[in-house]
Amino acid sequence: MPGIFARIASGEIPCYKVAENDQYLAFLDINPLTEGHTLVIPKKEEDYLFDLDDATYAGLMAFSKKVAIVLKNKIKCKRISVVVLGVEVPHAHIHLIPSNSERDVNFNNPKLKLEKERMQEIASALFSGYAANN
Amino acid sequence: MPGIFARIASGEIPCYKVAENDQYLAFLDINPLTEGHTLVIPKKEEDYLFDLDDATYAGLMAFSKKVAIVLKNKIKCKRISVVVLGVEVPHAHIHLIPSNSERDVNFNNPKLKLEKERMQEIASALFSGYAANN
Repeated sequence: MPGIFARIASGEIPCYKVAENDQYLAFLDINPLTEGHTLVIPKKEEDYLFDLDDATYAGLMAFSKKVAIVLKNKIKCKRISVVVLGVEVPHAHIHLIPSNSERDVNFNNPKLKLEKERMQEIASALFSGYAANN
Repeated sequence: MPGIFARIASGEIPCYKVAENDQYLAFLDINPLTEGHTLVIPKKEEDYLFDLDDATYAGLMAFSKKVAIVLKNKIKCKRISVVVLGVEVPHAHIHLIPSNSERDVNFNNPKLKLEKERMQEIASALFSGYAANN
């Protein structure tokens, strides 16, 4: 049975979509560390990032850069931090975290509780930003 | 004046070298979260990862994958985690952290104190592993 991220990629499970092309998908983390905290995945199911073939890996990184640039433009923050823990969900995924200091990038921090409307608002702003540039 | 990572890249400041080519350098973090914790940098000085031009960024990611594969082969761990905080040193750098759980990837954790000899031993094993495959 496909894992949760594969089911999100196929559209079976809904998500707050941030950006998409034929091979990759970006969507809001539903337990965000900061507003705009986004997950980027290859649609192809592969557990470990560095087991991705070179082309899929390179495409994932190029797509992540495009998403990070949109995030930085749309979310008030100093930087987009990048984290791949690789142990929570068995489908390679990159956390893009709008951050103002190292303290923002700590998975032990309490997660934000955002209303559904706020999540939709953020996702919509990001999705428009991505669509306008890609 | 060049920053500390540019001075490491030029050889002015020594490091525990893990891998190198004409554009990129990997070396052990001297305040490691786990044994083998490595920093990967472009030799070209650029503060923010996502300000790198596409080619330099793609090359950095490809080089990081090669280094991560060597790390996973040489260091006992489940995964190589990836972190780009982007706020500590104004020269884009990727942390590659051998990890067994999400808990290993927390920059609030106390850093390991490793003897110089142990750092050299780890770097040497990684350097040989990289050289043998690239």
